[in-house]
Amino acid sequence: MSFERIAIIGLGLLGGSIGLAVREYLPGAQTTGYDADPAVRTRAAERKLADRICDSAADAVREADLVIFCVPVGAMGAAAAEIAGALPKNALVSDVGSSKQTVARELAEALPGQTIIPAHPVAGTEHSGPDAGFASLFQQRWCIITPPKGADGALVDRLGAFWEALGARVEVMDPEHHDLVLAVTSHLPHLIAYTIVGTASDLEDVTQGEVIKYSAGGFRDFTRIAASDPIMWRDVFLSNKDAVLEMLQRFTEDLTGLQKAIRLGDGEALFDHFTRTRAIRRSIIEQGQDDARPDFGRGDH
Amino acid sequence: MSFERIAIIGLGLLGGSIGLAVREYLPGAQTTGYDADPAVRTRAAERKLADRICDSAADAVREADLVIFCVPVGAMGAAAAEIAGALPKNALVSDVGSSKQTVARELAEALPGQTIIPAHPVAGTEHSGPDAGFASLFQQRWCIITPPKGADGALVDRLGAFWEALGARVEVMDPEHHDLVLAVTSHLPHLIAYTIVGTASDLEDVTQGEVIKYSAGGFRDFTRIAASDPIMWRDVFLSNKDAVLEMLQRFTEDLTGLQKAIRLGDGEALFDHFTRTRAIRRSIIEQGQDDARPDFGRGDH
Repeated sequence: MSFERIAIIGLGLLGGSIGLAVREYLPGAQTTGYDADPAVRTRAAERKLADRICDSAADAVREADLVIFCVPVGAMGAAAAEIAGALPKNALVSDVGSSKQTVARELAEALPGQTIIPAHPVAGTEHSGPDAGFASLFQQRWCIITPPKGADGALVDRLGAFWEALGARVEVMDPEHHDLVLAVTSHLPHLIAYTIVGTASDLEDVTQGEVIKYSAGGFRDFTRIAASDPIMWRDVFLSNKDAVLEMLQRFTEDLTGLQKAIRLGDGEALFDHFTRTRAIRRSIIEQGQDDARPDFGRGDH
Repeated sequence: MSFERIAIIGLGLLGGSIGLAVREYLPGAQTTGYDADPAVRTRAAERKLADRICDSAADAVREADLVIFCVPVGAMGAAAAEIAGALPKNALVSDVGSSKQTVARELAEALPGQTIIPAHPVAGTEHSGPDAGFASLFQQRWCIITPPKGADGALVDRLGAFWEALGARVEVMDPEHHDLVLAVTSHLPHLIAYTIVGTASDLEDVTQGEVIKYSAGGFRDFTRIAASDPIMWRDVFLSNKDAVLEMLQRFTEDLTGLQKAIRLGDGEALFDHFTRTRAIRRSIIEQGQDDARPDFGRGDH
């Protein structure tokens, strides 16, 4: 019942990790891979990110029973259109995009009549490209499957079993709710990190050298996610615009509240807020979603 | 020329780490320690955070040639007043506070005529209390010394040599500039992290359980510094109010700019911004101020 011929379109961090994870954890399955960038295809072949690296997307999908799009969410529609003629009718189409409503719509438009079940493994690092992937990326991470209305339950289960084989835990959610949840747990944090790193680079009275030297005071934490792939993140913000703007509005209200407390010297309000936020980290660590070592274990190695 | 009898007032993460680091790297020096909380003193004695744990601050400083205040910046004045009668006239007074103008003023008011040279080791973890300290905390981290106008250069050097012996790199800066630099590299990042963690906890349409489950998308990075000591941070924001509000204003302007780009669908502006911010992380890693491993090396251990 598991998939046997998996086509991976896009061979960056996510696509490459899927290829490596399939080889490691699903040794019976065959993978084909394609990337629009010839240099990425060359490097993908060297790293053996898929069993066969193809020179066209159509070639890669021709015999697939599962096709996974691992391209930036803004490129999903065009990538899907490229394979429309070559895709077997019974192949399941999925993806790994960070926003789901837009992607579901674009894939459906490009591949009318095809069975499409989008998914989003909540996993990654700040690195990107064909050298960034590794087989264990999905271990202990959640993969959210967002089936369209009326999707075949057995197929949803089969896709879930695929992700579980790669080490992920699986949750099913409707795409609207996914986009709201991810707006707060992923998109807003990236936007904030990109913003503060930009703010710190642009100061006239503090040099960039000083920002770098004294970054261990907290700033350096933000630079990690602000080093993530610019194209991927541009597309996420454009495609999940409404939910991101909604969360940003709430964040700004809360920030204005704390700003006012600082201006008024209201120590009690600050203390109360800062006490509340400790509990969440404890839960994240208890649930295996972050490292318990102080300072992320920096300096331990 | 190095200090021989070092009194540490406050035995949390910083004070405890200084005590342990002195034993490790300056074995000729004797340390005394005091904390206002009896439970902390008991634990400090068990962990041997200082050679002798005293029951009063006056006892701890009576024979010291260096006194280091390691209490929240809002408690510096009161802690200094407590030792005023017992402090040897030739002892150098310093501290580890995260803001320097206010602390310098409060220490000078509480200890008239005493030689005071404030300092700030830019090092820490999200943990606090007498169990949090460790000897290597200051390795490779910067310690900023902020001497008052007219300070004795030889004493500044002597304090610098002390911090270098503990593994730190030393920089001398005026207190005003320190407060501006740290507002951006440390205080603003903490404020932002505290804010976003609060925002995520307060949503009605996304549960706290969901926020925790899907935190690996970026959010979990912020929870680490938002788990820092609430009293310490309340005091930092109140004592470095002007510089924090100034940096917050700039951050808000930049965030509004990106918000507008998202609303207008201006992908080019987003892409340009996100590309600029990658270089800073590279420099931070090159200069040994952060871990080069992807995702802070999570999962490597």
